[in-house]
Order: sequence, then structure tokens, then C-alpha cells
Amino acid sequence: MTVTAPAGFDAAGIAAGIKRTGALDLAVIVNRGPSQAGAAVFTSNRAKANPILWSQQVAADGVVSAIVLNSGGANCFTGHQGFQVTHRTAEAAATALGVSAGDVLVCSTGLIGDQLDGEVLEEGVLSAVNRLASDDAAGLDAARAIMTTDTKPKTVVVTGDGWSIGGMAKGAGMLAPGLATMLVVITTDADLPADTLDRALRAATRVTFDRLDSDGCMSTNDQVTLLASGASGVAPDEASFTESLTEACRDLALQLQGDAEGASHDIVIEVRGAETEGDAVEVGRSVARNNLFKAAIFGNDPNWGRVLAAIGTASAPFDPYLVDVTMNGVRVCHSGGPDRPRDEVDLTPRTTHVLIELHAGEASATILTNDLTHDYVHENSAYSS
Amino acid sequence: MTVTAPAGFDAAGIAAGIKRTGALDLAVIVNRGPSQAGAAVFTSNRAKANPILWSQQVAADGVVSAIVLNSGGANCFTGHQGFQVTHRTAEAAATALGVSAGDVLVCSTGLIGDQLDGEVLEEGVLSAVNRLASDDAAGLDAARAIMTTDTKPKTVVVTGDGWSIGGMAKGAGMLAPGLATMLVVITTDADLPADTLDRALRAATRVTFDRLDSDGCMSTNDQVTLLASGASGVAPDEASFTESLTEACRDLALQLQGDAEGASHDIVIEVRGAETEGDAVEVGRSVARNNLFKAAIFGNDPNWGRVLAAIGTASAPFDPYLVDVTMNGVRVCHSGGPDRPRDEVDLTPRTTHVLIELHAGEASATILTNDLTHDYVHENSAYSS
Repeated sequence: MTVTAPAGFDAAGIAAGIKRTGALDLAVIVNRGPSQAGAAVFTSNRAKANPILWSQQVAADGVVSAIVLNSGGANCFTGHQGFQVTHRTAEAAATALGVSAGDVLVCSTGLIGDQLDGEVLEEGVLSAVNRLASDDAAGLDAARAIMTTDTKPKTVVVTGDGWSIGGMAKGAGMLAPGLATMLVVITTDADLPADTLDRALRAATRVTFDRLDSDGCMSTNDQVTLLASGASGVAPDEASFTESLTEACRDLALQLQGDAEGASHDIVIEVRGAETEGDAVEVGRSVARNNLFKAAIFGNDPNWGRVLAAIGTASAPFDPYLVDVTMNGVRVCHSGGPDRPRDEVDLTPRTTHVLIELHAGEASATILTNDLTHDYVHENSAYSS
Repeated sequence: MTVTAPAGFDAAGIAAGIKRTGALDLAVIVNRGPSQAGAAVFTSNRAKANPILWSQQVAADGVVSAIVLNSGGANCFTGHQGFQVTHRTAEAAATALGVSAGDVLVCSTGLIGDQLDGEVLEEGVLSAVNRLASDDAAGLDAARAIMTTDTKPKTVVVTGDGWSIGGMAKGAGMLAPGLATMLVVITTDADLPADTLDRALRAATRVTFDRLDSDGCMSTNDQVTLLASGASGVAPDEASFTESLTEACRDLALQLQGDAEGASHDIVIEVRGAETEGDAVEVGRSVARNNLFKAAIFGNDPNWGRVLAAIGTASAPFDPYLVDVTMNGVRVCHSGGPDRPRDEVDLTPRTTHVLIELHAGEASATILTNDLTHDYVHENSAYSS
């Protein structure tokens, strides 16, 4: 159950020959309407891939007919030639589908700096359009076709009152979204205009994908797209739609965390007692990006000193000497000093909960991250070779 | 040749029993004068260890008689009890040396969050004072006594015209100074007042230790101390002293980089063509802190796309699509697109040179970092156990 679960969407995932392995590498998702409302958020990295530059233009008017996604190459820092490949991809899909190229989004993922072969992509798009279907299998093929180092496809379905949301995601490395995120496509048959979709998408991603910081490295190709077909004939109120969309995004974010490259722990960093939510996010992120802390968790070592050393680099207002730190239920630091013995903390479960109480206010936020492992280093030491 | 090379300094390094291994763990360095001018810079981490809180007060008046340094425990986040241990350490040294405790600096390094044993430290200080000597062996013992995961002592001597500078340093992890740095003691027999020493020290550290960012993790205990005995009777001009001091600091910074935990590459990130020096530092640091880039270098993989993805997160003014990247002499990226083939780049030497030309101005800066290796993860995954 994925992007084809809501009514009005067809999908396909094929092996176009972009990946040398012969694995699925190209997906097409089409919104059959009656509405073709769409919204998207993009990476805030200033180094943006060609498909991002293209898709930002396409999404601007809130009308999206289809989206083409490929793995096997990011088409980033590939110059004019790379942009032409993206354009040609959209044109090929538009011609085959009888829509305007200006309504076709393109997403790419893979190695930065290599040219994609425009002919391979064009033939792949035609082949995928011929296999479009609205069944589960087609949706799952699409979810598989966008995988890179992901070990499994990520999909979600959330059901509303007479309408539903379906989604798929990829992302295993370069996983530290800022205002936007990994490759995610979310469909709905709710009947909502583009501006509502845009608000709902920004609200949902702000507290889900934007709180996931697996390895501190922001991608050049991140994009989350929301497509609405209106095929259910139901127009839910914005609040309940946003709530369901947030649920779908959170579910996908947790799946991304759980499949992060080489990770052996899913770390939940909960910051409480901050003056503002932004302060809580900053403090949590400082811990999520601290390699020494992340390596300690890999070693099942409840080294709370590294938590405090990390948050000492944040600018949020709090007194480091009043902070409490609790790891998997054991308060190991109280008022900036040692509390319960470290050896009471059991870090063998995959999920590690770190609670940081700042005693500076009432705001809170949770950041999701992963540990720093041998396998992370291994997977990322020879990705391009 | 180390801190005892300049005239007027005695040193000792002993095994006080702080480390369970029985290795050297306590050093004392005494300035015998005639001058007792001193200056120090401290970590800008808001989470500061007790010895930092103490030493900031001691250094404020520019008079420093002695410095006590211990490894085997950071005395950080150890509350009032920890501060009392630092105070007791300074008092013990002051009494034994016949000086004021308010003129005795204290530095500690090791695990955060564990209490040091005040009695062990006091006895250690007395024992070290009894062994003070001005010969090379005593200076080398002191340099060895501050080591933690360092594999070798780091020392330097720079000779001026009738005066000299000697130095020692430790630091292998949590190595990302901000305005200050690791544990470093530098001595000189030049006759210079404290305010001159302070200016010279800030100027030297700004372009040396502050440009070293091995693992992005800022320490709670960093301190660089400069002590001047005036024993040479020579008062060099400030510019030439600053130049020699900078040379000594750069030499020690390179030794720290070369011995960074688990590292297999010393990476020199040279940023040119920035609008300001601060912009060049920001861009260089964004690359130095990118785990994907650092893992690629470990794998001898010239993955320049990760360099561009990293600098795209910087706020410095430049156009990412105009940037050139050269790795070990091979320009792999030109104007934001592929240039020479990756396989022309040989990354097997320990030193990796990454040149980033922003084409946005005339300013430049160089940041030193290391790769992200299996050994880094291994060393840091069980440090406290």
C-alpha cells in the first residue's frame, strides 16, 4: 500500500538501465485527477541539483500532472548538459501522457557529478508510461525504483474519512534535511487546492522530516512532493488533513531513520525545558551532530559528558550546570553533575532515548538521529567507486 | 626539546596514580622568573570544566607562577566538589612552591563527569614539585604526562635572536577549537609584558589552532597558556615574537592533526577566492565537518560532489555553480561541473590537499582536518568503559 492507495493515481517502477546492476531505477507517478493540485518543498542546500532547479519552476503554479524519479545518478553539478537531460525527461513524460512538460516534476538521486544519459532516461520514461497501473504492485515498484543504499522500500498509507493519503520515501545517507528532505512522494485523493496543500505540507515536514538528522549532511536533491487528485470527492478540513499528513510524514521519517546507512541505533533526542521550540531544536541538533556522542552510542557507552559537551556549543539560553540528562530511563546527570551510575544504563536495544532537561522554559522538541558506526564509514568510504 | 628549552622554567611529569594504567598523568611547570608574565586562551564551549573556570580567574591579572596539568580525568560537570579539587590542587602547588594559589593555573583532561580524587592530586603535586628540573628529560616527562589517547608527545622549540620559545601539546579527539584549543603550554624566556603576550597569543592561535577541526567536537577543557620568564633579558619586538609564536603554534597544530584519533589522512582544505577571510574559514569548516566527505577520503575516493554538497550549506557569498575543486593537484570540478576524471586523483598519500576556488573575491584560509575512519569510530565507541 503506497502512492497508488488513494484514488486517481497510476504508478510504475522499471529498470531503465541507469543503474549498472539492472535494478529498478526509474519511477513515474501520474495524477489522473479530476484535480491536479500539487505542492513541494525542496532542499535548502544552495547547491541544488538540476531536477530541483526544474521542479521549483514546475511546482510554482500549484499544478502538477506527473512526477518522474530516477535513482542511479543525482544529476547535480552536471552543468547545462545536466539541465537539458532533466528537461528532456519531463518533455518525454509530457508527450507520452498528453500533458504539459511544465506540469511534470523530476527528481533524481545517486552520485553527484556524473552525467545521466538522456536517451536512456527518455526510453525509460516511455517504457514506464506503458506500464502505468493503479494497483499495489505498481506503487511498490515505484517505491523500489527510487532506492539507492536503502535496504528496503518505505511506504505509508493513512486513511481519512472518505479519503486517504499514500506515500513513498527513499533516503539512507546525506540525511539531514533543512526545510525540506529526501525524495518523498505523497498522494491523496482529498479534494484540496494547492495553497492548502502547500501549508499542510510545510506544517507536516517542519515537525517530521526536518527533525530527522541522521548524519548531519544536507543533500543537494531533497524534495517532498504532495499530489492531490480530488478523486474521493471529499474536501476534508485543513486541520484534520494536516494531522493525517503529519502522521504519514512521521511514519516515513521513522522508516528512514530505521534504515539509515550502517546504523545500529535509532536515537531519539528529546529536549525539554527550553525557552523556545527553536532553542530545543538547536540543542537537540547539536547532540545529533556530535560524532563522539554518536560513536559512544554505537559502543553502548552512556557517555553523558559528550551530551553536555555538545550542547555547550549551542547558543540557546540555558545554564549548562543546571541540566539533567536521562538515558533510557536512567538519570545519569543531575544539575550538571554525576547522578546514577553509568552502568545502570542498558543501551543494547536499537532505540536509544536521550532526555535533556534544560530547566530554562516550557518548550520542547525531539530530534531523530543514528549512531556513528563502522558500517557507516564503510558504506560511505567507497560509494562512487 | 620542549617547555624547558627557554631559560627560567622547571618542569616535571610523574605518575600520580590518577590513571589506572600507571602511566604518567600529572605535570607541573614553574616559571622561575625574573618575570612571571602569562596569558591564556580558553575554550569557547559554554560547558567549561572546573579547571577552566579556575584558570580564567588566575590568568586575568597577567601574572602566572606555575601550571599544574593532569590527564586521567577532565574534572568537568563534577559540580562544587570538582571545583574544590581544582582549588586544592592549586593550593598544594602554591604552598610547595612558595607562591600564591591565585597565580597557579590548573588544566585537566580525560573523561567528563567523573570526580578526581583530591588527595591523589595533592600528593601528586608535592611529588612532582620535588622532581622539578630544567633539563630536556623533565620537559619531555611533562609532555608525556598530559597525553590521553595521543600516541606520542608533541613538543616544539623555536629560536629567536637571543631568546627562544618552547612548547608542548596534547589533543587527539574532541578536536575542534573555537577561539581556543587543546591543552597547550608554551614557554619563552623573552622579556615581554602580559598584554603583549596576550595579543601575540590571540593572533597566533587565530590562524593555527583555530583552523584545526579534526572531528567537529569542541572540548570543555581546551586551554593554551603562554608563560614568559624574561630570563634571556631580551625584549623582542612584538611582530617578530608573534611570528615565532605563530610558527610554534602551527608546528604543534600539525602534530595534533598528524596524531588525531584513528585518522589515516591529514586533510588540508585550502579555500581561495572568498570575499572575506571569515567566509573562507566558514566554507573550509563546512567541508571539514562533513562526515560523507571525510569517509570518502578514508576510502581514497575523490568524491568532489560531497565537497560541493557541503559548501552549499555555508552562508558565505559565492555561486556554487562557478566553483572549482582540485584534489591533490587534479582539477576534478570546474565551474560546478565535472572536469578531469576522478581516477586521475591519487589519494594514497597521508596528506590530502583539497583546493576550493570560489571565484568570489581575493581572501583565503586553510582548515586542517582528518578523515573519518573505522579506527576513529572504534576508539570513540568505548572510551569511558
